[in-house]
Order: sequence, then C-alpha cells, then structure tokens
Amino acid sequence: MYPFTPGSYAPRNGWYVAAFCREIGEALLSRWILNQPVVLYRKADGTAVAVDGRCPHRHYPLGESKRVGDAIQCGYHGITFGSDGKCTFVPSQKTIPGVYAIKAYPLVERGLWAWIWPGDPDQADEALIPTLDEIGFNIPGMIPDAFYSMHVKGRYQLLNDNLLDLSHLGYLHATSIGTPDDAATPEVRDLNERRLSSRRFMRNTPMPPYHDRSVYDGPVDRISGMDFYFPGFHAGIGESRIPEDRPQGGRLLHTSRVWHAVTPATKTSCNYFFGMSAPSRDRLEDAKIRLEPVLAEDSFATEEIEKIISTMDALPPELMLKSDVTAVQGRRILQAMMDRERAQDPAGAASERRREDEPV
Amino acid sequence: MYPFTPGSYAPRNGWYVAAFCREIGEALLSRWILNQPVVLYRKADGTAVAVDGRCPHRHYPLGESKRVGDAIQCGYHGITFGSDGKCTFVPSQKTIPGVYAIKAYPLVERGLWAWIWPGDPDQADEALIPTLDEIGFNIPGMIPDAFYSMHVKGRYQLLNDNLLDLSHLGYLHATSIGTPDDAATPEVRDLNERRLSSRRFMRNTPMPPYHDRSVYDGPVDRISGMDFYFPGFHAGIGESRIPEDRPQGGRLLHTSRVWHAVTPATKTSCNYFFGMSAPSRDRLEDAKIRLEPVLAEDSFATEEIEKIISTMDALPPELMLKSDVTAVQGRRILQAMMDRERAQDPAGAASERRREDEPV
Amino acid sequence: MYPFTPGSYAPRNGWYVAAFCREIGEALLSRWILNQPVVLYRKADGTAVAVDGRCPHRHYPLGESKRVGDAIQCGYHGITFGSDGKCTFVPSQKTIPGVYAIKAYPLVERGLWAWIWPGDPDQADEALIPTLDEIGFNIPGMIPDAFYSMHVKGRYQLLNDNLLDLSHLGYLHATSIGTPDDAATPEVRDLNERRLSSRRFMRNTPMPPYHDRSVYDGPVDRISGMDFYFPGFHAGIGESRIPEDRPQGGRLLHTSRVWHAVTPATKTSCNYFFGMSAPSRDRLEDAKIRLEPVLAEDSFATEEIEKIISTMDALPPELMLKSDVTAVQGRRILQAMMDRERAQDPAGAASERRREDEPV
Repeated sequence: MYPFTPGSYAPRNGWYVAAFCREIGEALLSRWILNQPVVLYRKADGTAVAVDGRCPHRHYPLGESKRVGDAIQCGYHGITFGSDGKCTFVPSQKTIPGVYAIKAYPLVERGLWAWIWPGDPDQADEALIPTLDEIGFNIPGMIPDAFYSMHVKGRYQLLNDNLLDLSHLGYLHATSIGTPDDAATPEVRDLNERRLSSRRFMRNTPMPPYHDRSVYDGPVDRISGMDFYFPGFHAGIGESRIPEDRPQGGRLLHTSRVWHAVTPATKTSCNYFFGMSAPSRDRLEDAKIRLEPVLAEDSFATEEIEKIISTMDALPPELMLKSDVTAVQGRRILQAMMDRERAQDPAGAASERRREDEPV
Repeated sequence: MYPFTPGSYAPRNGWYVAAFCREIGEALLSRWILNQPVVLYRKADGTAVAVDGRCPHRHYPLGESKRVGDAIQCGYHGITFGSDGKCTFVPSQKTIPGVYAIKAYPLVERGLWAWIWPGDPDQADEALIPTLDEIGFNIPGMIPDAFYSMHVKGRYQLLNDNLLDLSHLGYLHATSIGTPDDAATPEVRDLNERRLSSRRFMRNTPMPPYHDRSVYDGPVDRISGMDFYFPGFHAGIGESRIPEDRPQGGRLLHTSRVWHAVTPATKTSCNYFFGMSAPSRDRLEDAKIRLEPVLAEDSFATEEIEKIISTMDALPPELMLKSDVTAVQGRRILQAMMDRERAQDPAGAASERRREDEPV
Repeated sequence: MYPFTPGSYAPRNGWYVAAFCREIGEALLSRWILNQPVVLYRKADGTAVAVDGRCPHRHYPLGESKRVGDAIQCGYHGITFGSDGKCTFVPSQKTIPGVYAIKAYPLVERGLWAWIWPGDPDQADEALIPTLDEIGFNIPGMIPDAFYSMHVKGRYQLLNDNLLDLSHLGYLHATSIGTPDDAATPEVRDLNERRLSSRRFMRNTPMPPYHDRSVYDGPVDRISGMDFYFPGFHAGIGESRIPEDRPQGGRLLHTSRVWHAVTPATKTSCNYFFGMSAPSRDRLEDAKIRLEPVLAEDSFATEEIEKIISTMDALPPELMLKSDVTAVQGRRILQAMMDRERAQDPAGAASERRREDEPV
C-alpha cells in the first residue's frame, strides 16, 4: 500500500505509542492499533496494561465492557479475561481450557507515553524503546507535557513522511513555526540502528513568525531537526540564538523539544500524539494554544492527501527531490522491517494482504 | 460471509418479516430486503402487497413513485406496474410485451406481521410461516402489540446469534431483564423441521431488575426461552412464579411473550422488528418505554461487532463455549438452507457472490 | 461500469465543462474531473487555466495551495508550478529538471463555460466544442445566464441518460415543466459527427403547469428537444405557440434555450452545470427560483439510482422501451469513443480498470 509495496502498510515488530500515560486510567480505553481493536487500562496497582479489544467469543468490543477488579468482563456474554489475557470466568461452564485467552500486549510506560509492541512478543525488547535521555526528555529546567491526542483520517506513513521532511515548515507552517529557509537549507543526516536523525543549521536566518520578538528582533542562528525512532516516534529539536557577530552573540533565545508519535489505527487512519517541553508552565500553556492550529495543518495535509490517493485509480511515480533523501531513507527502513516480518511469518502477512485489493 | 461460508449471507427461500402490518398503508413504503429494494403498500381492497422497489427500465426507486389506483407509476418515466407486477402502461407505446414486469413477492399477513418470501415463489408455502398458536400469540387475556421497527447497521446473523444465545441477558441486559443465572443455567433444546427451541428453567433465582417487586420480592422460579423459526423469526417466552416451597407457591408473577423478527436489508445491515404481548394495555405501554433501552443495547452490540469484523483483515477462529450449542446449531441450519439453494440455482448464487470480495 | 462495459465510465478525449467562466477567478478552485483533482484559476491577464490539482511530489491538493503570481506554490513543501504546468521553483534545489511538471489541461472559454479536454492534448481540437450559434446562444433578444453549479452523487451517465430521454418531463417533472404528452409523443432524431439531436413536436397539447397562463390559457403547439454534444453537453430548446387554427394562431408564447453540462467528478459522482437564456432579466430571475426544485428532482433521481445500482449484487438486463432509442444511441456513441481510446492506449485503460472491481 502506498508508499510501500502491496500488502505492506506498517511494521508490527516495533514499539508504538498506544496512548499518553495520562490517558490511561481506571476506565477502559478503546483504541484501534494496527487494524486491531485494543483496550488500555490501569490495574489497581497502577500498572498500565493493553489487551485485545475484541472478545474472541463473538467479537464484542471489550473497551465497551466492564472492569471487574483487574479483569475485563465482556459486556455481551460475561466472559472474563485477566490483565494477562487469560480467561478467568465463563458464566456457563466451570472448567476453562487454557486456550481461552486474548492477547496481552507488551506495554511499557516511559516518559509521557505508553509504548505497545503489536508484533511477536518474544521480540519485544524494551531496549528498543527510545531512552528519555536520547530524546531530550530529561533536560534540566525543561518541563515535558502531553499536548494533543488525535485521530487522523490518513495512513500513518503520511505523517511519518511529513515529519521526515521538515522543509514543509517553510510552507505548510509559513505563518507560524517556519520560514523559507527551513526548506532551502540542506540537511545533515545521521543513521544508526534505531533512528534516522536530520539537522538543519541555519545562520543569520529570519525568526519564524511565532517566535517572541519582545526581547530580540533580528536574524538568528537556528537549529531545526528531527530524530525518527522506527517505526513511529519523532523527537524534534528547535533552538535559536543571537548570531555570534552581534551583541550578546550566542545567547539562547528559544529552545524546545517536541515529540510526535504516530501509530497506525486502521490501514488508512492513525493515532497522532504530540507533546513537548518548555522552560516554564506558562510557556507550555501558551504553546498549547498556539500550536493547535499548526498541528491542524498537518492533519489537514494528511487527510487531504489520503482522499486523493485513495480516490485516484493509480498514482503515477512521485516526483523525487534532493530534499527527499531523508524521507526516502525512512521509508526504505520501514519497508525493510516489513519485508523481514513477511519472511519470518509468510502466513500472517498473507492474511493481512486479504483486504489489499486497493491499488493505491 | 461471516459467520457463513464465502458467498452466503442469508437464505432466500424462507418467510421473513417485511414490515409490521400497521406500517403498510396507502402510502408506498420503501424497504431494502435481502439486498433488493422492495416497495410495500395496501391495495384499495385492503390487501397488502410487496413488489420490486426498482423500476426495471432505469432503476428509479418505485418507493419514491406514485400510486395510481392499485398500481405504481414510476416517478421517472411513468411506466406503470400493477400490484401483480405486470406492466400496465408505458407512456410511449401502445403494446406492452408480457415480459414487461417486476417481481411481485408472495406476501402474507399473519399476526402483527407481513411475511415476505424473497426466493423462488414456487416454494413459498404458507404452511412454513409460524402459526399464531405456536408462537403464543393467541393466549387468552394477553394483548399483542408491535413495538419497534428498526434499521440496524449490522448483518442479520449477528442479531440471530444474539437471540440464539440468551446467556447475554445476564450481561448485556444486566441492569434490566437478566441476571447472571440467565448465563449460568444450562439450556434444554428441541429441534424440529421449522424451529429450534431452547429453554432455561431457573429455580430459586433472583428476579431481574426490571420486574415488579411491589407484590412479591424474593427468589422466583423462572422460565426463559426462545423458539427460532428459520430463517429470521424468534418467539420468546418469559415466566416467573413464586417457588413451590414458599407461601402462595406456584403463583404466576410475570408472564410475557416477545417476538423478534430479523430480516436482512443489505448484506451488512438488517431490519429488526420487536413486538410483545402483555396482560393489559398499561403493561404494554410501560414495557414500550422500559424496553427501548434494552433493544438499544442489542443494536449497539450488533453495530459495534459489525464495525470490528468488517474492519479487521481476517477473523481468527471464534472461541466456542458449551453455551454456544444452540447458536451453532442455528447457524448450521441456515448454512444448510443456503447450500441447498446454491445447489438448486448455481447461477443465482454466483451472481450474489460478485460483491463477495470482503474476506470477512 | 454500468451502463458501459467493465472498465469504461467516460471518454477522456472530449471537451467537458470544467466550470462556469464566472466560477473561475483569482482564487484557486478545486474540482475533481474524471477522477483526477484539477485546479482552475484565472491568470493576471484574465486567461483561465486548468492544471493538475495534485502536487506530484507528495500529492498535496494544489487547490488548497497558494497563488504566487500566475503560478501555484504547493501549500505543503513550496514546489511551484507555472500555469503551463512547468515547475518553476523547488525550495531545496537550484536546478529544476524539465521533467518536473504537472499536466496543464487544454481549457477554452466559450459562452458561459470553461471547456476542458482531459485526454490526449494532441487531439484537443477546439473545433469540437459546440459553437455558440449551434447551441442557440446568440439568439437576438435572449439573455444567457449561468444558473446552478452542482455536485451530484451519481455517475455522470445517469444524467446523460436523463437528458437523452425527455419523456421524463411528463413524470419526474409533472408538476412543473412537463405533461404526459412529453412522454407519449414520438421523437424525431438527427445524428451527425458531433451531436445527437431529438425533437418532439406536440400539437394541441396542454401547457405545462409552470407556463404563464395570464396571456393565453389553452392548448398549444409545443416543441421540446435536446441536442447532445458528446460527451457531456446538452443544449435544449423549448417553444410554445398558439395553434394555427385559433385566433392569433402561430403567436409565440414561450421560448427558452437551456444548457446542461455533465462532467464526471469521480466514477460515481459528477459535476452538473445548468444555464439558460430568456428574453429578459426578470424572466431569468424568475426561472432561477422556479427551476431549482426541478433540477433537484433530477439530482434526486440520479442519486437514488446510484444508491440502488451500487448496492445490488448485479443488475438484471434493463427493460428497453421504444422511447429509449435516443438514449441507447447516445450510450453507444460514448461506448465507441471509449473503445477507441482503449485501442489507442491499452495501458492507460488498464490502469483505470484497477479499481473496477465493482460488478455494477
């Protein structure tokens, strides 16, 4: 499925953000993740858990069901599953075969996020989750906050593509967080096993419209970058300083860390989580208001593109620009992950392909 | 199509409820039945009729057309069909070939219902319609009434499954008409050519929340059961008595007959008709108010399950419980009916399969 | 696709109305045309242009983008295309390969309409556009006006079929512009390379309900006709006179020219443009109010038929009437155009067929 090969739309073996930690509480939370209904909740001891959101008996949504202690009692016929997925109660029978179970997903809370592993649980290595240090979460004096949890009606890769190509800041976000230099400046890339990093270093560049001009109003030296942790987490960095050749040269004017998590909901829609850190609560509250329309621009782009690609008969080959190197590299890495999964589990991949009649 | 084999979704040779009699009047009533538009109306002499809802000329909805006497004049180009389906008028020509006709469906009014036979009319034997006696319609002192006519966005078999497994009363309807004993008590089954019957006899069981406690408040002996008349009619029975070992033992506290009719509209939606009888008009009016949220629970379950099964790539095998015997037997009977139809009319079955690309 | 062969839904090599001229201005106008997003606008020099509505880089809608002079700057990453389709600016690179381009459609303004040629531009011969004289646009004393620009949720051929069979005036529009004689009177046909013409000459026929009875109230001699210019333009004529054998025999009571343009939007929806001429501004304003419900009847018929044919498994063969000769001839001509295109460009046709899984 665009932009991947037919039958591919997202890797399964990877840590995705299922929810912000603060979204998970006593109440059952329903969420589609990689085309499966999932239910999230917090046990009495405070542990967050994720299990199948579909009762295997008659497919009733477990997220619309009832908590009984740490277990979920299906709202339809009362079959009950513990937080480990094992069936603990069937109203009509005393013995419960061991095969009566739902999937319990590996779920780890780290930072603002609850990370889920939708694929083979044996491969769910916590060391693959981005560390708080590497995503700039623990910077002294900076307060991290979960901003928005959104459902976007477009396939998840469209948002990955968005975040892998920050040249869009200069145009889609031209009235807020970007300037034409975001698009004109070449990137520096760095790739390792777990993430693809890109940075733009802009010298003597205009401040973006949203930045505070009350203290200083003039050209700045600016850094903009994003680290893509496969398969769906993007840690961004923004920094502006007074240029060295000016009075107070090198003084930090603005710094932020932003975190975008993108998780497939269905094949053509996704869950999108945005959070960030700033030096004060006030700055956070201000940013929360001012960035809402910015994120809405990204959702709009994603949904409009989805409409176009899912309506047209066939997509001609894309125009490839020099600035697409990072995005193309990101796509290739995800495609390779999916190819590996398919090689490991051909049957599973084939069953996923069953709905893949869409040409695009 | 789930839960049947690919290409099967409902038998055609069977009596389905097309409408409550009281819904059929002088005005044309449009309704989809087994993936065909149908139009229902009452002739001047009071006879209810059902004919194709699609003009064979250019597919205009005859239900959005005009009655001319007992005939329907297509609202688009004026072609007119009698209630027997024969074309009686073509504005542009004087001679009307005998092949100009629409299908006139066998339609029989019995009880509260107008019964339609969508399949081969030669097999439409009225003796196959449930008799009023066997569905408990003619019980002295009981007044039958048509309650709700609903359109539910889920395939018809989901509602059959619902009604074939009354263990759901104990959970989906736990705050109203059921108790955990509805799910815990084994069933007694009886099968004949025309219906599959199940009964639960509960001794010394708590009264369901909705039952009147002003006269007696204590454990009861309760009967709950359903007779499934293939392919889409369910006659239910409910009865509570004071247990024999108590003062006034054996006294009848509560009795009701309920009738659920489920008719496929499209392949993934259905028409759902609920009626019941009670000993007085007041009881009926009271029940009409109190059962509306109960039926809404069944619609909710059906629609949520439809969303899940029509979104997922493939459904894993269902968990089968001991309490599923009745539902599984009901499904097998319907599947056998469909298999017979397919053997009789392979071409018709193949044309139905044309849209059956959905894996689920 | 009904009523054409599988894989066929509309010719590409033909002039379609993209918009009324007055709809095209400085602002970018997004419109789907033959299953492609298109953007229309007027250059600084007043010339109307039409280009691809999809950025070939990442499929962002160019109609939701920004004009920069006569060029469009993609709202996502800033790639800019001139009105001739050639890429003029890429923010991240200095050299722009000649292949960076979008399609610029042949677009010609004539009369009230901007005519687009979606197919092979080399075949876009302006001489194929209906001339204003032949469609009765230049009649002295008659004022032409663009009335309604609509989006109808039904395939374009349903509206062609509608307009190719004016017998529907007697029924669908029985309360306004037609009488039963519209359906009962045989047609006279005339076919040439570019259009299929039909006329009904009704003698001593009742006036339609909408016609003015203040001057004369009695039977009239009436002409009703339509010229179908392939593939989507219909020029209609209406005329009523006092019959010759009456006082003032031959006096013209009513005359109008109407123009219907039908352009596929997606495969199952279309753009519908209605305009007409009348002898005075007052008559035009009056007609604009009185014809709105009439056009709504045609939209209703189209959308209801689309629902029926796109839901049913398979359509049985249509009932063919003597009055269908014109419509059938029109369909055959369009089918032949599509067959020719397919023979010329088998690959293009195959890619269009990719979504043609629908049986109907």
